[in-house]
Amino acid sequence: MPTTQPITTDPPLLRRLQSLCRGAELEGLGRRLGDLANLVAPDMNAIHTAMPRLRPEASAVERSASHLIDLGGKRLRPMCVALTSRLGTGFDERARELAIAVELVHAATLLHDDVVDVGETRRGAPAARLIFGNAVSIFAGDWLLVDALRRVRRAEVEGVLDQLFDVIEEMVLAESLQLERRGRLDTTEAQWLAIVEGKTAALFRWAMYAGARAGGVDPEHCHTLERFGADLGVAFQAVDDLLDLAGDPERTGKALFADLREGKLTYPVIVSIEREPKLVPLIEQIVEAEIPDPDLCREALRLIQQTGSLDDGRRLALRHAERAKAALLALPPSRARDALSTIADATVHRPA
Amino acid sequence: MPTTQPITTDPPLLRRLQSLCRGAELEGLGRRLGDLANLVAPDMNAIHTAMPRLRPEASAVERSASHLIDLGGKRLRPMCVALTSRLGTGFDERARELAIAVELVHAATLLHDDVVDVGETRRGAPAARLIFGNAVSIFAGDWLLVDALRRVRRAEVEGVLDQLFDVIEEMVLAESLQLERRGRLDTTEAQWLAIVEGKTAALFRWAMYAGARAGGVDPEHCHTLERFGADLGVAFQAVDDLLDLAGDPERTGKALFADLREGKLTYPVIVSIEREPKLVPLIEQIVEAEIPDPDLCREALRLIQQTGSLDDGRRLALRHAERAKAALLALPPSRARDALSTIADATVHRPA
Repeated sequence: MPTTQPITTDPPLLRRLQSLCRGAELEGLGRRLGDLANLVAPDMNAIHTAMPRLRPEASAVERSASHLIDLGGKRLRPMCVALTSRLGTGFDERARELAIAVELVHAATLLHDDVVDVGETRRGAPAARLIFGNAVSIFAGDWLLVDALRRVRRAEVEGVLDQLFDVIEEMVLAESLQLERRGRLDTTEAQWLAIVEGKTAALFRWAMYAGARAGGVDPEHCHTLERFGADLGVAFQAVDDLLDLAGDPERTGKALFADLREGKLTYPVIVSIEREPKLVPLIEQIVEAEIPDPDLCREALRLIQQTGSLDDGRRLALRHAERAKAALLALPPSRARDALSTIADATVHRPA
Repeated sequence: MPTTQPITTDPPLLRRLQSLCRGAELEGLGRRLGDLANLVAPDMNAIHTAMPRLRPEASAVERSASHLIDLGGKRLRPMCVALTSRLGTGFDERARELAIAVELVHAATLLHDDVVDVGETRRGAPAARLIFGNAVSIFAGDWLLVDALRRVRRAEVEGVLDQLFDVIEEMVLAESLQLERRGRLDTTEAQWLAIVEGKTAALFRWAMYAGARAGGVDPEHCHTLERFGADLGVAFQAVDDLLDLAGDPERTGKALFADLREGKLTYPVIVSIEREPKLVPLIEQIVEAEIPDPDLCREALRLIQQTGSLDDGRRLALRHAERAKAALLALPPSRARDALSTIADATVHRPA
C-alpha cells in the first residue's frame, strides 16, 4: 500500500527553525527561512510526491527502506539540489530525480550505518534494523543505492553520474577510516576532518553540483557551488557533533553520548582530550560500561565543557558556514542564492 | 602493495574439470574444455591483469574486498562475458571492463551474503568478515558495487548499465524473498525457482547480454543469449544445491548442511520434504542444535537420498542445461558458441 505522509507547503524543518528563530537576535534568520520555505515549497512537494512508494506485494527489503524514507527527515540534501537548479534554468523533472537520488543515497548510508553501529533509533523512531532485522537492512541499503544511481542515470545530466560514483566511493572509504579509528582516543582533528569530508561533505558537494548541472549553471559556478557544499557539509557535521553532547535527545533523535559509545569520536571530544588528559580514563569507562554511569557522563560532560571545546566546535561550524557563504558571492544575486546562504546560517543555528 | 596471483594460461577451473573428465564417458567433454581454455586464456589473463589492485595505503574496506577477489574463484561470469563478446566483433577493452564488473558485482553479493548468513569460509579460506569484521565487509560490498557500476558506465555500451541496475534490483529482491522464507520448511519448488532466478540466474543473464552487446551481436541474438544465461544460472544453482548435500566439503569450500543450517532450503531438501514428512522434525533438530548431531545428519541425508530428490536435482540441472544449449542453436556456428555449450555441460558435471 502506498504510504502517505501529509504534504505540507512549508517543510517541517523550516517551520521548526522559524519558530526557534523568533527570538530577538535571530529574527532576521526567521524571516529569511520564511522566504526559503516559500521558494522551495513546490519543489519539495514534487520531490515528496515522486519518492519511491511501496508496491502492494512489497518485500521486507522494500518495507524496510520505506520505513526510513517515510519518516521524512530534514530532506536538506534534496532542498540543496532544488535550490542550485534554480540558480540556472530552474527546477524540472531531471532536477527532481537528482534530488530524490541524493536522499536515497543518504538513506542507504543510514541503513548500513545503523547495522554497523548497532543503532537503535533513527529519525525519532526505532531503526529499521530493529523492526526488519540487520540482514534486511543491508539489502535495503543496496536496493536504495541502486535505485538512486538508476534515477541519476535516467536523468541524463552530463557528468553527475560519474561524480556520484566517485562521491559514494569517497563516502565508503571515509566510513572505513572511521571504523579503523573506532574507539581510538588519539584521533586528531585532521583525521576527524578527513572522515567528515568523505562521510558527510562529499554528498552535500554532489547535491550542489547535480542541481546546478541540471539547471545548466556554467561550469565555473558549478565548481564554486561544490566548494559551498563541502564547507556546508563540514559545518553540518560539526553541529551534529555538538548535538550529540549538548543536544536534547528527544529533538535530535540520538541518545546523549551515543556517538562516543559507538566508538565515534566527535569534534569536541577530540579537542577536549588534547586539552584535558583526565578525560581519557573517564571516557574509557563510559564506553566500556554495559550501561554508562550517569554520574560519569555528567563529569565527562563537565570536563569537556571546561576545555571550551564546545565553543570551539561551534566556531568551527561558523567558520565553515561563513566560508561557504563567501563562496556564493561569486554568483549573480538571486533568491536561490540568498536561500543557500540562509541554509548555511540555519545549519549552524539548528536547535541545540 | 599490489597482490599478485600466478597468471595461468589455462584457468584453474578448466584444468580441474579437465582432469575430472578424463573418465571414459566424459572424455569428449574434457577435450571440449581444452578448446574452451585455449580460446579464452588470453581474455582471462587480460581480465585478471586489469582486476582492481590494492593501493599501498589501502583502507580496511579495500583490503577486505581484495582478500575475496584475490582468492580468484571460478571467474565463470567474466568468462561468459568474454565468450559472448567473441560471438560478435570480439573481446576488447570494453568487454574486459564488463567482465571485471560482473565479477565485482558477484563478489559484492558474496561479501554481503556472508555477513547476512554468518558465513565462515568462502573460496576455501576464512570469510572476509572473519578477518576484517562485519562492518568492513558491508562497506566493502558497497565499494565493489559502485566500482562495478562505474566500470560499466565508462565502457559506454548501450543498454548494459540500465540492465545491470535492473538485475541488481532483482538480485536484492530475491535475497529478500530468501530471507523471508528462511527456515520455512514449507517452501515450494516454485518459490525456490523464483529465488534462484533472481539471486543467481539474473547475473548470468546479464553477463551474456553485456558481452554480446559489447561485441555488437544483433539484438535478437542478444535476447537468445539472455535466455541461455537464465537457464545456465538455474542449472548452476541446482548443482550448487546438490553439492551442499553430496559434495566433498573440502572441494566445495562449504560445510555439509551449511545452507540448511543457515535456513536456506536447497532444491533436494524441498523435494524431499514433500515426499517424506518424517524429515521435518529431523531437519528442525539439526537446524536448531548448537552443534548438529552427526548421526541425525547422516539419517537425514539417508532419507533425502531415499526420496530420489538428489537425482531429481541433477535432472533439473540437466534439463536447464539442455534448454540453454538448445537456445544456442539459433546462433551461427562458431568456436565461441561451442564454448558456451561446453560451459553448460561442464556446469552440470562439476566435481560433486
